[in-house]
Amino acid sequence: MGKRNLYLNNTPVEEARIIYENALKNRIKMDYEEIPTEASLGRITKEAVFALCSSPLFNAAAMDGIAVIAERTKGASDREPLELKKQEDFIIVDTGDPVRYPYDAVIMAEDVIEMDDSSIKILEAAVPWQHIRPVGEDIVAGEMLLASMHKIRPIDIGVLFSGGITNVKVVKQPKVAIFPTGTEIIEPGEAPKEGDIIESNSRMFEAMVASYGGIAERFSPIEDDYDKIKNAVSGALDYCDMVIVNAGSSAGTEDYTVHVLRELGEVLVHGVAIKPGKPVILAVIKNKPVIGLPGYPVSAYIGFETFVKPILAMFTGEHGYESNKVKAVLSKRLVSSLKHKEYVRVKVGEVDGRLVASPLSRGAGAAMSLVRADGFCVIDQNCEGIEAGEAVNVELYRSLSEIRHTLVSIGSHDLILDLIGDLMSIHNPGIYMSSTHVGSMAGLMALRRGEAHMVPVHLLDEESGVYNIPYLLRLFKEPMALVKGVKRIQGLMLQKGNPCMIKGIEDLAGCRYVNRQRGAGTRVLFDYRLKLSGMDASLISGYEREAATHMAAAALVASNSADAALGIYAAANAMGLEFLPIGEEEYDFAVPVEYLDLPEMQSFLQVLKSKELHHRMDEIGGYQYDMAGEIIFIHQ
Amino acid sequence: MGKRNLYLNNTPVEEARIIYENALKNRIKMDYEEIPTEASLGRITKEAVFALCSSPLFNAAAMDGIAVIAERTKGASDREPLELKKQEDFIIVDTGDPVRYPYDAVIMAEDVIEMDDSSIKILEAAVPWQHIRPVGEDIVAGEMLLASMHKIRPIDIGVLFSGGITNVKVVKQPKVAIFPTGTEIIEPGEAPKEGDIIESNSRMFEAMVASYGGIAERFSPIEDDYDKIKNAVSGALDYCDMVIVNAGSSAGTEDYTVHVLRELGEVLVHGVAIKPGKPVILAVIKNKPVIGLPGYPVSAYIGFETFVKPILAMFTGEHGYESNKVKAVLSKRLVSSLKHKEYVRVKVGEVDGRLVASPLSRGAGAAMSLVRADGFCVIDQNCEGIEAGEAVNVELYRSLSEIRHTLVSIGSHDLILDLIGDLMSIHNPGIYMSSTHVGSMAGLMALRRGEAHMVPVHLLDEESGVYNIPYLLRLFKEPMALVKGVKRIQGLMLQKGNPCMIKGIEDLAGCRYVNRQRGAGTRVLFDYRLKLSGMDASLISGYEREAATHMAAAALVASNSADAALGIYAAANAMGLEFLPIGEEEYDFAVPVEYLDLPEMQSFLQVLKSKELHHRMDEIGGYQYDMAGEIIFIHQ
Repeated sequence: MGKRNLYLNNTPVEEARIIYENALKNRIKMDYEEIPTEASLGRITKEAVFALCSSPLFNAAAMDGIAVIAERTKGASDREPLELKKQEDFIIVDTGDPVRYPYDAVIMAEDVIEMDDSSIKILEAAVPWQHIRPVGEDIVAGEMLLASMHKIRPIDIGVLFSGGITNVKVVKQPKVAIFPTGTEIIEPGEAPKEGDIIESNSRMFEAMVASYGGIAERFSPIEDDYDKIKNAVSGALDYCDMVIVNAGSSAGTEDYTVHVLRELGEVLVHGVAIKPGKPVILAVIKNKPVIGLPGYPVSAYIGFETFVKPILAMFTGEHGYESNKVKAVLSKRLVSSLKHKEYVRVKVGEVDGRLVASPLSRGAGAAMSLVRADGFCVIDQNCEGIEAGEAVNVELYRSLSEIRHTLVSIGSHDLILDLIGDLMSIHNPGIYMSSTHVGSMAGLMALRRGEAHMVPVHLLDEESGVYNIPYLLRLFKEPMALVKGVKRIQGLMLQKGNPCMIKGIEDLAGCRYVNRQRGAGTRVLFDYRLKLSGMDASLISGYEREAATHMAAAALVASNSADAALGIYAAANAMGLEFLPIGEEEYDFAVPVEYLDLPEMQSFLQVLKSKELHHRMDEIGGYQYDMAGEIIFIHQ
Repeated sequence: MGKRNLYLNNTPVEEARIIYENALKNRIKMDYEEIPTEASLGRITKEAVFALCSSPLFNAAAMDGIAVIAERTKGASDREPLELKKQEDFIIVDTGDPVRYPYDAVIMAEDVIEMDDSSIKILEAAVPWQHIRPVGEDIVAGEMLLASMHKIRPIDIGVLFSGGITNVKVVKQPKVAIFPTGTEIIEPGEAPKEGDIIESNSRMFEAMVASYGGIAERFSPIEDDYDKIKNAVSGALDYCDMVIVNAGSSAGTEDYTVHVLRELGEVLVHGVAIKPGKPVILAVIKNKPVIGLPGYPVSAYIGFETFVKPILAMFTGEHGYESNKVKAVLSKRLVSSLKHKEYVRVKVGEVDGRLVASPLSRGAGAAMSLVRADGFCVIDQNCEGIEAGEAVNVELYRSLSEIRHTLVSIGSHDLILDLIGDLMSIHNPGIYMSSTHVGSMAGLMALRRGEAHMVPVHLLDEESGVYNIPYLLRLFKEPMALVKGVKRIQGLMLQKGNPCMIKGIEDLAGCRYVNRQRGAGTRVLFDYRLKLSGMDASLISGYEREAATHMAAAALVASNSADAALGIYAAANAMGLEFLPIGEEEYDFAVPVEYLDLPEMQSFLQVLKSKELHHRMDEIGGYQYDMAGEIIFIHQ
């Protein structure tokens, strides 16, 4: 079977971190550089900064008016106005002008009665030092303006200049070399062949390094070649502060990274009890940190956050990352293993004032689930799972205010949901829609548990032949609204040219079919049609194989990994498939009446009725939207 | 009196904002540009982005192992292992390798028994499609990756590349011209003369524009000359999207800005009911926004935040700024006027689990108070004030987690407080000290109200001649600790060469004295010495004039704005003043016993005892620190 490194360790996360940080503690030296103050935004002071001059530099008028000698204004009153002579008793000053000896007070322009060019009258005596900003009122030369290890903000830049500081010593940004490796890896932009993987992790790392105060130097992908990897890493260490090697960190036949790092230096940890992210390598070479991260996007992301970020902080001194933790109610039971600490991506919605966390796909390869997620729920290694309804800590990476302005949709999938969400962000900036695709039935169950504002549904009642309404009557006691969506055509999505000669449901026996998940309206429809045709599900090879969306099912057919799947015209069309219509169905939105007035729902309804959406639906094809946005109130 | 624009309006903030945004709504067009995906971090998508290809692009092995034809593995069991032939029944695959027809399942390496180079045995049948990542599992070609108006994060960059997107359409960053004006303004780095003001606002604006997604173009200061300002503004509008003119926006003799803007276009608002920040000008010229901001740093900052930031958002589409609002208890009564909405800078501390907001200086010129503040408390225009103890909304601009790790010190001022805070940030990154200088007595009162962890005190008990302890016995019922600080020398700080020939307190009559605020230990000491000398305070000119810190008092003497002040040796030394010692005093720290164990307090104690601090104190001079860090427990 070739050379495999089957023996990956399973070091607990915290232990791995401590081992590594201890090894690096005395090796990483926080370096500094002196830069112009105007270029220092977001940088961190290496040492305390003291003012070189005071501000104001002199006693200054705090108002527009006249500077006077307070002593000489005594006795002025409404009854006995006092006349003052220009240059002798007063001078005109604007705000900020110096007030020099013997002048020691300022009278506001509004309180001065002009007589002629050389004299004025006042009705009240001046108190010494009134309306004067004393020298050093804001900044006193020698005082500390900023402490060490302070992250410089715009206002700090203003104060530094006021205090006479034109250059500032800041912590130097560490240089991080990033090496993507793998023979199957191609650069973005090249046309991919089967077996190729477009390199994307290193670009994500680049952006993460920049976000955390480092300077990334990303290299072109290196093929799986021991010497090439070795030379690259060794060369980069001559002028970089840290190296990240991506992939090859696991135990496959071509996973050279750990061997290379062992030869060059010391591997302290190989394999961490974290999911996703296990095959992490933590090494020290030439007294510098070298980290091997796994290739799956989600593992790569979590590995970076867990191990690279804290090491970067040792260089940058950046400690102010506020983890945005909230308590949310878990919508679905989560089982985890004692073998690892697990990071579960969750969507978080606020429904009825309560934050609800719904777990997303747990696959390490599902980068899109990271994009769609609102945060992580962390299950500790010593925990076997969390029950639905329990309160969990969620580390948000979307802001709470965004979440509060998000319409939470859980239910059946259709391409138009993304379009609607998109138009909502355009027309009502600051309002969002989050859609989770679990199928119609599971969506209605989530709505009953108070986890959603709305459920996209297309459920055929076999007895009455009516869509959706019978289900709402059956499942809900509270007043419900059915917001009409679209009629859409469902049919069999088949390979181009229909090589299997499928003419209907009856011809599926012997073909490679791909089904949708249980509770999906499309699956309900398929089962109904099977029943009508009198066919047994066991005859259909792939009946148990599930795809989560119309598009995923279509993609499997398009790639010749299946011969047929039931789905909507839009998906077949997008994937260039043949389409055999089976029938029209009603795809609507179930909404509790009490949510109709939410501004997010109003935005949704507005978009649903908009010409812009209808135009986009025409472009995709297969939709009929005459009733879109009409509301049917369901009375028990 | 020259030409003054006395007639500034007082438009309410919200009204001004609506007037301006309405005027600009149809004039500002959100522009876009196409940039390489790797350069798109933090930029905002102009339109939805759809995947060009799927990920994975093919059915891929999800594990290292062998790809098999599931059908042919039927019947394998522990008792009847099944032998499979290489190339015929199986091929070896690593994670990520394509699995092609007719192979339709992967068996993990761990579950395979190797026999020889060409055959293996398995103990269990494979389920079709097991351990295979189906094509499009992560991304399906054609699916929406990112919606419009989405701020691009590192993970988004990864997904864009995986989806085949190498260029992305993003909202163009608006170009903002910044013009500092004023004849008295000099560039940072030039040696300032009396009357000069170092230009710093424009640099702060530059950084603020960058923080909010614009591109700043900052110009050199323009003198107060109508035509020069006019030509500059008009010229910049030919290629910039927005112009900021700094200062000259008020109603002084040389405030030309509003006249220039009126000639060039339309001034919609001049003067807003906001404090600080009133003299704001909101204009439209050549269909572009031109904003005049006041010159005082705090007014400039608040004017920018209130009026420039929302207009920038009209260009950038950035709506995700989460205002970090918290509820805090107000420590001191705040009176405000019905004439304006007021932004009061506050320090916020968490003491005993309760957030307390303490108002700072309300002067428009106090930029340092903006640096030291943790946030703003906003008093609405229709509110006359807020009582101490009331809960107020505070808009934080420091993170809550930082505030939670901050030791709150309120009391007497000494230079060493800044040094201690600095050393704390160096030795215990992530731990901070915040010190507010209100004098010893006011500090003890704040401690009694639960607003501080610690009070720096130097209060002489006249009867016993003992410092600090008698006050703690008198004022506190709960167990208190007195953490010993330093002995420091107080004396008269006098002008160089002592021109007024002051030999002691007795000689102060007739001199220009500057006092410290009521409740300050130094003032208590001064009063005590006055009493001893039998002198009447009314004989001392300037007894009522107050400076808030030793350094501020020293600066007034140094600038010949006063002849004498009582203060510490360190301040006199820092300002190059003569120093006439009056006596030694004990500057200690009062701490409730229950707070001694806080990690922040432990860090403070550690620094107080450190050689590094003592070394720094020696450099400044005038301190004796033999007992520093010793704790005296005060029993009732």
